[in-house]
Amino acid sequence: MADRLSDSERIAALSALPDWQFETQPGSIRRAFKFADFPSAFAFMTRVAFIAEKSGHHPDWSNSYNRVVITLTTHDAGGVTAKDIAMAEAIDKVAV
Amino acid sequence: MADRLSDSERIAALSALPDWQFETQPGSIRRAFKFADFPSAFAFMTRVAFIAEKSGHHPDWSNSYNRVVITLTTHDAGGVTAKDIAMAEAIDKVAV
Repeated sequence: MADRLSDSERIAALSALPDWQFETQPGSIRRAFKFADFPSAFAFMTRVAFIAEKSGHHPDWSNSYNRVVITLTTHDAGGVTAKDIAMAEAIDKVAV
Repeated sequence: MADRLSDSERIAALSALPDWQFETQPGSIRRAFKFADFPSAFAFMTRVAFIAEKSGHHPDWSNSYNRVVITLTTHDAGGVTAKDIAMAEAIDKVAV
């Protein structure tokens, strides 16, 4: 199981992920995405789905037409871990 | 543009869709789904995505691992229309 990052570890990790916001309750990071249309949004979600399944770490996310909001947390650890940071980095790559 | 259903029209339509609950704010219908795992949940979402794009009517939805929650409303009409009922029927078919 991944350990929850300390405040300083999390702040350092998020400095390289400027589009992700930390949410104190329950300890998660979140990013909102906007695409040209629904197929573009869902194509992005499909790429993220494969990353999630491969890594065994799944987002909490929502979609409304061309908008996707992704929240990452490690439920077992009760907060943000290195798994969430790695997932955010991978998501940012496919969102470009 | 589809017209918002009257209360009696909506109640009649939902009597055939027992798994969908009406939400008064802002006037929508909602169903929660639970699948065996994430790939099963996302496969379902993919089928719904194609239905949504084909019909030009898109859900507001969220996913967390094996759970999917779908909310249907017709934003232009400010509530539930025949388009939402048709979409719920189509979703129920692929959820079986």
